[in-house]
Amino acid sequence: MAPTIKLAEYLFSRLKQLGINSIHGVPGDFNLTLLDYVEPAGLLWVGNANELNAAYAADGYARIKGAGALITTFGVGELSAINAIAGSYAERAPVIHIVGTPARSSQDLRVLQHHTFNDGEYRRFAQMHAHVTVAQTRLWDAGQSPEQIDSILQQCLLHSRPVYIEIPVDLVDSLVSSERLSSEISVPVNESTPTQDAVLAKVLDKLYAAERPIIFVDGEIRALGIIDDVQEFVTSTKWPTWTTPFGKGLLNETPSNFHGIYRGKYDIPEVQRFIDDADLVVCFGPHFSSTNTFAFSSVPKAEVTISFTDTEINLQSEVIRDMCARTMVPRLLRSLDLSKVKSYESYPKLPRDYLVPFSDVRGSDPITQDRSWRILANFIRPGDIVLGETGTAGYGCREMSLPPHTRLFTPVTWLSIGYMLPAAQGAALAQRELIAASKYHGIKEARTILLIGDGSFQMTAQELSTIIYNNLNVIVFLINNDGYTIERCIHGATQRYNDVASWRYLQAPSFFGAKEDAFTGEARTWAELEKVLGNEKLTDGSGLRMVEIFMDREDAPEGPLLQYIQAQQKLRK
Amino acid sequence: MAPTIKLAEYLFSRLKQLGINSIHGVPGDFNLTLLDYVEPAGLLWVGNANELNAAYAADGYARIKGAGALITTFGVGELSAINAIAGSYAERAPVIHIVGTPARSSQDLRVLQHHTFNDGEYRRFAQMHAHVTVAQTRLWDAGQSPEQIDSILQQCLLHSRPVYIEIPVDLVDSLVSSERLSSEISVPVNESTPTQDAVLAKVLDKLYAAERPIIFVDGEIRALGIIDDVQEFVTSTKWPTWTTPFGKGLLNETPSNFHGIYRGKYDIPEVQRFIDDADLVVCFGPHFSSTNTFAFSSVPKAEVTISFTDTEINLQSEVIRDMCARTMVPRLLRSLDLSKVKSYESYPKLPRDYLVPFSDVRGSDPITQDRSWRILANFIRPGDIVLGETGTAGYGCREMSLPPHTRLFTPVTWLSIGYMLPAAQGAALAQRELIAASKYHGIKEARTILLIGDGSFQMTAQELSTIIYNNLNVIVFLINNDGYTIERCIHGATQRYNDVASWRYLQAPSFFGAKEDAFTGEARTWAELEKVLGNEKLTDGSGLRMVEIFMDREDAPEGPLLQYIQAQQKLRK
Repeated sequence: MAPTIKLAEYLFSRLKQLGINSIHGVPGDFNLTLLDYVEPAGLLWVGNANELNAAYAADGYARIKGAGALITTFGVGELSAINAIAGSYAERAPVIHIVGTPARSSQDLRVLQHHTFNDGEYRRFAQMHAHVTVAQTRLWDAGQSPEQIDSILQQCLLHSRPVYIEIPVDLVDSLVSSERLSSEISVPVNESTPTQDAVLAKVLDKLYAAERPIIFVDGEIRALGIIDDVQEFVTSTKWPTWTTPFGKGLLNETPSNFHGIYRGKYDIPEVQRFIDDADLVVCFGPHFSSTNTFAFSSVPKAEVTISFTDTEINLQSEVIRDMCARTMVPRLLRSLDLSKVKSYESYPKLPRDYLVPFSDVRGSDPITQDRSWRILANFIRPGDIVLGETGTAGYGCREMSLPPHTRLFTPVTWLSIGYMLPAAQGAALAQRELIAASKYHGIKEARTILLIGDGSFQMTAQELSTIIYNNLNVIVFLINNDGYTIERCIHGATQRYNDVASWRYLQAPSFFGAKEDAFTGEARTWAELEKVLGNEKLTDGSGLRMVEIFMDREDAPEGPLLQYIQAQQKLRK
Repeated sequence: MAPTIKLAEYLFSRLKQLGINSIHGVPGDFNLTLLDYVEPAGLLWVGNANELNAAYAADGYARIKGAGALITTFGVGELSAINAIAGSYAERAPVIHIVGTPARSSQDLRVLQHHTFNDGEYRRFAQMHAHVTVAQTRLWDAGQSPEQIDSILQQCLLHSRPVYIEIPVDLVDSLVSSERLSSEISVPVNESTPTQDAVLAKVLDKLYAAERPIIFVDGEIRALGIIDDVQEFVTSTKWPTWTTPFGKGLLNETPSNFHGIYRGKYDIPEVQRFIDDADLVVCFGPHFSSTNTFAFSSVPKAEVTISFTDTEINLQSEVIRDMCARTMVPRLLRSLDLSKVKSYESYPKLPRDYLVPFSDVRGSDPITQDRSWRILANFIRPGDIVLGETGTAGYGCREMSLPPHTRLFTPVTWLSIGYMLPAAQGAALAQRELIAASKYHGIKEARTILLIGDGSFQMTAQELSTIIYNNLNVIVFLINNDGYTIERCIHGATQRYNDVASWRYLQAPSFFGAKEDAFTGEARTWAELEKVLGNEKLTDGSGLRMVEIFMDREDAPEGPLLQYIQAQQKLRK
């Protein structure tokens, strides 16, 4: 007879195999028996304050660890989380959304249960999730469940997108075969085919022929699992390299051929010209949304671009389907003869992200957006995770020069304000787990740094409590600029609807249960900022630390936001 | 030429005609120009901390004022709100969800905008809303928009359920005809038909023939607009009357024939027997979900029941379709000859909700669930709105004897924990508007009282800030029982997943921006509770006041919760 195991144990064993050590979520009556199995499986249960926050946190965790999981309850819980799941879909975070559903008998009999519309219809919420997840499965028969689980987890990894699993409460402790567990779930790697070889040869010809090649890296290389390969390509060719906002933070920024984010029409003319003059743009993991491409102005010209996506290679104007970057980019690297590619002796000096020292500003001056981000960048250490919430912080963090092995979260496409604070909780937990497992580039200590505006902070503030409860190493820089400055930039600069209530932000650690001596500080001038940033309790303390930085309500970092608000200010005059 | 008006002005004029004076929501880039028209239309803009909370607040507002409105932005905003919209559907709150969407040109060209999945597909979120709203409309052509708006608002009123309106950002200031505005939107009243007359005659025969009739009132009488009619029926027949949890708080509880909630199998034997012996149960607005009927045990026997629903009359075993209670109940009252109905000289003394005075408890004893709700009920005044959040508070508030013109929010079917705090904000605002308009039963001052557990409080705590910002008259009794006691009752009494982080709850008013002297108090014993409840700053102050009441983590009010947890405690022994 085959060895057996309870269904919940099977599922959680699989999650552990994927490198998931913590599950986020909120208890609810249809998932309680499932939760009984979380800690016995050796997983940490992270009970978030609400489901939206839990799903944001699972997303942040997944982007750092390669997969994350979330447990909610039927109806009320899963729908509260659905906006975050949509964001995971849009920006490719592999989140496994597990929903505890009513007993199969209740569903079959269409019982007028709570958490339904009192009409016997149980399928609505799964149908809604079909719009925001890449695969869905409804466990119903114990015998078939292991294969269903394996198949959907593979889809999650393959697409690096959320999946949805329904577990009826009465199925949780059903016995299933544990045989499949002996082989791990992985993304299938395609064998090479003659067609692929021909395409590869064509790509190599283009690479060898290029006289003015550049590299353009976008954020889907994370989802495609080719960060190291792209890094190798950048390092070995030494070609001038730019990223999108989504791509920033995935590569080592210290080599001299790394030039940070290409800002398209907002970039300086020399850069625009250099990129326009390229005869080859090698583009990895494109994700060309309006916001990730400065309104499409940074998208490289198709006629000189070779791009590698999850399903195709775009070879200049030719689209070659069924060529996944996950397979093709490693093969490209193995085939590449570096002696044949363009070697830039030198090229025009082009800007790179740089740090601004405090000596460049006058101590008594108020803190302004134009310098603050490059000054704050001095604070970042190798291995830190930096999150800039949608708003001025999200734009500002793109100017930061980052040390090696840092990761950056910046607004890309979904732009759901409120995301970054819970995401910081999830990312910090993933970071701690990687450090504990000695899988963090040899780094033994690192911090998670959240840059966030006051309006965004209010959306999901209670997740500070989860950071405190789990003693995560998180530093929050709260930009208090008196409301939704990003919305003021777009429209209604002085409209009351862009105001938010004034909170006493620095009381947050105390209110949310931190120890009495949790570090807080505030800064209105550069001198105050310098002092607070030099405090060891901030830089090397543990748990939650928080600094409130005051800036003007109509100030914004350089780039589109500033342009918008200046235009509005001109109109008012 | 017909008079014209901007589309946004048309929409907001219509909302005002429905009695909506405030709109809840969160600004976002696709709704900003729409928001420009809110205050000029004479509407108050209530900017909530996040969209889920805004939708919960709009729901609370709608249940008190008869309609509420919510504005969110495309994708991120509307999906954050969707769980609350689902709750409005399940429990029949008429909420108008208005979503600012991208310009029509972007949608037509499938531009890879932010707040999409970067795939050109713009219809997903509307499709998801079709599952949770009773009608949806996509404004696209200015000429047709007024009729679309009118039609969907009528659907909202008719079904007392949420509707969904998409307004592309470029359509907001298009000119439309204002002609339709001169006739108000109302729910059509059916003319009487011979079939209806025949049914009515049949119903009257049954009423006249009954020897042991009782009345059973459920919460859909609010949605059906027949509260006053049902009140008249109860008052004039003087028949013994019970409600469901959903029905409590809609009728005057002071007459001696009002017996509060019928608890089915949890009720005392005398009541069960009396109801079982009835030869007629007249049931208004049934909403027989598991949680609203004590697991269906309070549902009256079909063979003796006449029930009035939104679409049918159930005449004992006969189902007569297309008979709406909104039409039929008023006609029943007009036809009813009171001299022909059973007049109870007396009937066995059956329990009614009662108050417990402080003299019944020992001051030094800790506060317990068995008496606290009947003691707290002394605090309630005519016109107060009382909200008991899902959890021990939601069960406890059902025991409260309520003075006239109070309203009660208690868990019914959707049971989304986190709902009640923002709902209290919306309800308090609606209450203030009704008082200001002298439409509140002659009452000049009333309070909104929220009873809420610590776990629920954490879900949506930031909406206290909206209560403070708008100076709403809200008193919060926070039950600190160290975690999700309702979940402990169901399963996992001592499991760590039912714990929540310990917050310093009484710092909330200060953190969320209240004036330094905002009232807070705490109580662990009956004497402490008596003292705090006697404080005039609490009883007659203004703005937010907050009291933290400590209770044991495994204590619960009588009824199903207590039974569950006692069973678990027994197992552990």
